[in-house]
This record gives sequence, structure tokens and C-alpha cells, in this order.
Amino acid sequence: MKAIYEKRIARVQAAMRREGMAQTIVSDPDALWYLTGETVDVGERLAVLVVDSTGSLRWVKNALFTFDTDIPVLAIRDGENGIATLAEDLAPEGVIGVDKNWPSHFLLELMAAAPRTYVVGSGPIDRARAVKDEEEIRLMRESSAANDRCLARLAAWLHEGVTEAEAADHLRALYKEEGCEDVSFPPIIAYGPHGADPHHTVSGEPLREGMSVLIDVGAKRQRYCSDMTRTYFFGDVPEEIKKVHSIVREACETAEALVRPGVPLAELDRAARAVIEKAGYGPQFTHRLGHFIGLSDHEAGEVSAASDLIAEPGMIFSIEPGVYLSGQFGVRIEDLVLVTEDGAEILNHLPHSPCIGEARP
Amino acid sequence: MKAIYEKRIARVQAAMRREGMAQTIVSDPDALWYLTGETVDVGERLAVLVVDSTGSLRWVKNALFTFDTDIPVLAIRDGENGIATLAEDLAPEGVIGVDKNWPSHFLLELMAAAPRTYVVGSGPIDRARAVKDEEEIRLMRESSAANDRCLARLAAWLHEGVTEAEAADHLRALYKEEGCEDVSFPPIIAYGPHGADPHHTVSGEPLREGMSVLIDVGAKRQRYCSDMTRTYFFGDVPEEIKKVHSIVREACETAEALVRPGVPLAELDRAARAVIEKAGYGPQFTHRLGHFIGLSDHEAGEVSAASDLIAEPGMIFSIEPGVYLSGQFGVRIEDLVLVTEDGAEILNHLPHSPCIGEARP
Repeated sequence: MKAIYEKRIARVQAAMRREGMAQTIVSDPDALWYLTGETVDVGERLAVLVVDSTGSLRWVKNALFTFDTDIPVLAIRDGENGIATLAEDLAPEGVIGVDKNWPSHFLLELMAAAPRTYVVGSGPIDRARAVKDEEEIRLMRESSAANDRCLARLAAWLHEGVTEAEAADHLRALYKEEGCEDVSFPPIIAYGPHGADPHHTVSGEPLREGMSVLIDVGAKRQRYCSDMTRTYFFGDVPEEIKKVHSIVREACETAEALVRPGVPLAELDRAARAVIEKAGYGPQFTHRLGHFIGLSDHEAGEVSAASDLIAEPGMIFSIEPGVYLSGQFGVRIEDLVLVTEDGAEILNHLPHSPCIGEARP
Repeated sequence: MKAIYEKRIARVQAAMRREGMAQTIVSDPDALWYLTGETVDVGERLAVLVVDSTGSLRWVKNALFTFDTDIPVLAIRDGENGIATLAEDLAPEGVIGVDKNWPSHFLLELMAAAPRTYVVGSGPIDRARAVKDEEEIRLMRESSAANDRCLARLAAWLHEGVTEAEAADHLRALYKEEGCEDVSFPPIIAYGPHGADPHHTVSGEPLREGMSVLIDVGAKRQRYCSDMTRTYFFGDVPEEIKKVHSIVREACETAEALVRPGVPLAELDRAARAVIEKAGYGPQFTHRLGHFIGLSDHEAGEVSAASDLIAEPGMIFSIEPGVYLSGQFGVRIEDLVLVTEDGAEILNHLPHSPCIGEARP
């Protein structure tokens, strides 16, 4: 096993011992790649890595899925009961962690086959993944640089009559040109009133003079995710959109300026929210300020009033305030931010300006 | 609520009462669409439909996700504890079903907040979904007809030097032309030895004279999935590939000929496997014969030796025997089959022939 994976697994095992977890069952494909360098995508079948806090590792997995591994494998054939195999292999006592996203039917079957104390076991892995190492930081920088280039090219290309869906297709082609494997989530390109729905994706709506254009997009490049939002004006837009854009921009830049090691992430949320509340749009800022990101677009850890996390070097999260006026428009501005030893590095370099002509990285 | 959803929910509730389930918590996006006609895609946030066996329904969901619904909604804001809301709303006694794929952390949190007996609750919904109604059968026919047309066009287009990845891109464009929303799973286009890995997707390998070409592809059209496999010969291939192709073809057609109401699905697997075993390739047929399909590419229910299901009119599943010779080649042939009142209807009409020139639907 390569040194980087040994180091990551050792960190996870140390955290398990501190938390009194005897074993943990890992099923998340990104977590499996992070810990072993193996690509595991088994659909509804069973493939988990069992990690003992004291040392050994093994795969319990369907034999259909082969990969090079120097970790012992308990192979299950189609039709065999993989949960029985897993139950037999379980530590006879102690707390068992299970992947937070493991499908519940596996957990319920395992609980019936092997009565133990089960807890959510993803914490030690999630906390390791939240603090990126040098190689991960390099890949995250490259991924966001590609996103900057693609969004700049998309914005420069937008023209009257282009539908949201056509713009998303164009963007996917740009990502491919820039060496990205895939989008990190379905592109959100929302004209005018569509921007007021934070989870609108795309539609057949054509672009027309006077519309706002909210673009929230990201891609995976060498497995690491980018994620950025800009809100542009296509031609002259109503005054209220302009006003809200400058408020959201100030909220974003205020929070970004506060990022440094030691700052509570809840304080970033409060600072951005205070700008928006003071301007009278508090109730229209309906979501948390940001989320962690890396191999997955949304990783454990949030930037919200409820967060008890403290910024430390190597953390990467989004800062993305937004204001949504139902039936009218929405404005959101989002960057990814890396906490450095003495401050922060904004991974996105595209201006926050709403003018499409200025969208040059 | 439209009559079709009322009917589906009533069927689910009747099954819940038969099984002694007081409530069930539904989170699967396809199941939610099946039961309510609402599109729910909430990422890691909480959005579930709570179904009482005796009548009432409600959504417990993050307020960010809005949709038209005449079902009562318990809304949760970002930062609020949705599981506490769900726990308060839970039936005070009785068995609680949870969606088989509900992330385990929600279940563990709910178990801590509301001690009850929890079981996998998807059975009543899965059994309803396994038997398609008239409208669903129409959509499944249309989806597979589009898949036939696209695969025929892809096969006719294939030429020396085209990589697997380029072929997949071309296929995606054909699906779009045919009105499909998306692929139902990443296309598998496997030349030569790549065909021996049943879960190979695509690579930069170029097509060359004398290769076998295994193509396992499907798309979603009006939400319903297609899924079909053909194995072609590009030019003259080694004799063993030809031999294996005719064995796999016979296995597929033998099983298909047996489909009628009342046949145990395990018998279909046995019949196909017997053909392959008799020819000496039993150990190289490494997976079950087939799976159910509909709104999801893989739905509950399998066609395998371990299955205790009996065919009934309206069921749709795949029949897909395969033989894999590691490092050499793989052959798989797959159709979707509908059980009718007095037999079966094969939803795919593309010949099983390995000759690319004959790939005309």
C-alpha cells in the first residue's frame, strides 16, 4: 500500500481509538478512494472496507468487482448473503461504526445478524478529508482554475436566445476541452425568475435582454471538485437586481476577508448574514453560507450558524451567500476558499462583477 | 392528488397493513415520484414522505425544496434538526419501515430519538413497482424502442480507430436526438479483452479489425429506463468468440422462450445457466441472469437461482447471460422482457446477430 494511504488510514484509526470505535465499515466510493486509491462503484451490491481501530483492514465485497489490492478480500458471489459474511467477521465486542450513507437495509440486516452497538462511523474519515494535504490542495487549485476558465468562456459566449439547457451543453463541452472528467453536479443556469429557486437546474427558457443570469457550476478534474457561482446582468436589468447584487457581493467579500486559522466558521456565516440583514433582505437569504468540498461536491462540515468548526490550514469550503425574491430573481455569488497558515486563498479568480464583458479570469 | 397516485398509495398501504407496518418513511427519488408525481432531489438534505398504513401522508423536508403538493408539509430550515421533527411525528407505537436506501446516519439518529422497532420498509413499494401498469408498460416499450434505434445507429456508425469513449459520446448524442433525457447508466462499450470485465465502462482503446465489441447501454425516456446488450464482431474474430457467442445467444433465447405467468424466475436462471454449463463455460457465467427495471435501471427483484419470485403479468426484467474469459473477451446478450397475460413480449427488437451489418431493428 502506498505511503499516502497508510498515512490516511493511520489518522483514521487514531481518531477511532480516541472515540472508542472498535471497527468501522466504509462504503462511500469517495472515502474508499481516499483511503485505498481503489475505484469502487458497485451499484446496489455490497462492497465495503472494514477498518479495525487496532490495525487490520479487509474488503468484504461482491466478487464481480475486481481491482488490484494488497488488502485481504472476503469475496461474495451474486446470490450469497454478504451481510452474513460481514457479520461473522465483525469484532466480537466494541462499538461498530457504519458509513453515514450506507443504505439502511444493510445496517438493519447487520443489526439482526450481529447485535452490537452501532454508531455513525464516518466522523474520523470526514475529519481527515476536511483538511486537505499538499497534493489535494494542488488538485483543488487546478480544478477551480479550470472552472474559472470555463465559466469565463461560457459568459463570453452567452447571447440572446440561448436557452439555459443549451448553455449547460456548451459548458459541458468546455469542461471536456479543459480536461475535466464530468460535472461535479448538474449545472445550474437560471435566467430571471428561475434564479429565485436555489435548486433550479436548467430549462428551455431563452435568454432575453434585461434578465439576470445566475450560473452555479463546477466540474471534477483529476477527481477533485470545483464549484462556483456568479450572477450576471444581460443588458440593463431592474434597479433592485443591481442593488441586491452589490449587497450579496459585499456579504461574500466580507466573509472571505475574515477567513484565517482559528476563526469559527459560524462567525463567517454571521458576518455575511449581517450584511444582508442590514440591507433588509435577511429573510430572503434562506440557506447556510457554505459547505466543505473535495472529492465530493458536498463534504461533511458546513459553514453555518450551527457549525462548531474552527478554521484550520488545509480546509477548503465554499462561501456562497444568496438572496432570492420568489417570482422575480435571485442573486448568489460563490467562491471556494482555502484556509492557509496565515489567512486564506480564494481558489476562484473570476471577478464578482455582474458585467458579462468583464468575465475574464 | 391524481387518481393514479391515490391508487398506488392505497396498494402500498394495503400491503403495509398485511405486513404489520404502522408507518413507512420513503426517501428514494424514484419511489417518491412513483407515489406522488413530485420530483425530489435534495442531495444530502432531508426530504421524506411519511406514509401511515391507515391513511394520512405528509412530507418532512427541507424548506429549500419547494414543489406543488396537496400533501401536508412539515418544513425544516437549514440548521434545524429534521430528525427531531420526524421523531415527534412518528406513530407512538407499531413497526416503522424505512426506505432501504435511506442513509444510515438518518436511521441511527432516528433510532436514538425515537426508540421503536424499525424494519426495511421498501417491500410494499417495491412490489407495487415491480408490476407495471398500462401507462408504465407503454413508456417502457417506447424507451426500449428508442434504445433499439440508437444502438442500431451506433453499430452502423462504428469504424476502425473509433475509441470506446468516442463511441459512447456518439451514442449520447443519438439518445438526445431520440428524445431521451439521459443515459440510465454509464454506457459500457468494451472492445476485445475489455469485454471480460462485466463492469468495464469505456476507455481510449481504438477499434481494430478482429475485435469483439460488447455494448451494454440504456437511456431514460420520459423517466423510464431501457437497458440492452449486444456483442458484435468487428471483422473476422477468433473461432472461440464465435462459439461463445452462439452459446450465450442460445442461453438468452432459451430463457426468453420460457417466460410466461407462473414461471419461477429461478427457473429462467437455471435454464440459461444449463445451456452455458453444458457447453463447458459455467464458471465463466459469473452473475445472475437479470434484474427488474423501470423508473430505476436496477429495481428490486432479481432473476437468479436465489429468487423466489414467480412471473406475473406486468413484470419487466432483463435476461442477460454472459461468458467472460479474463484477458481475452466477453460476450453478453441482453433484452428486456415483459410478462404478458399469456406469455411474454420482448421489448427489444434488434437481432441477436453478432454481425454489425445486420444491426437493423
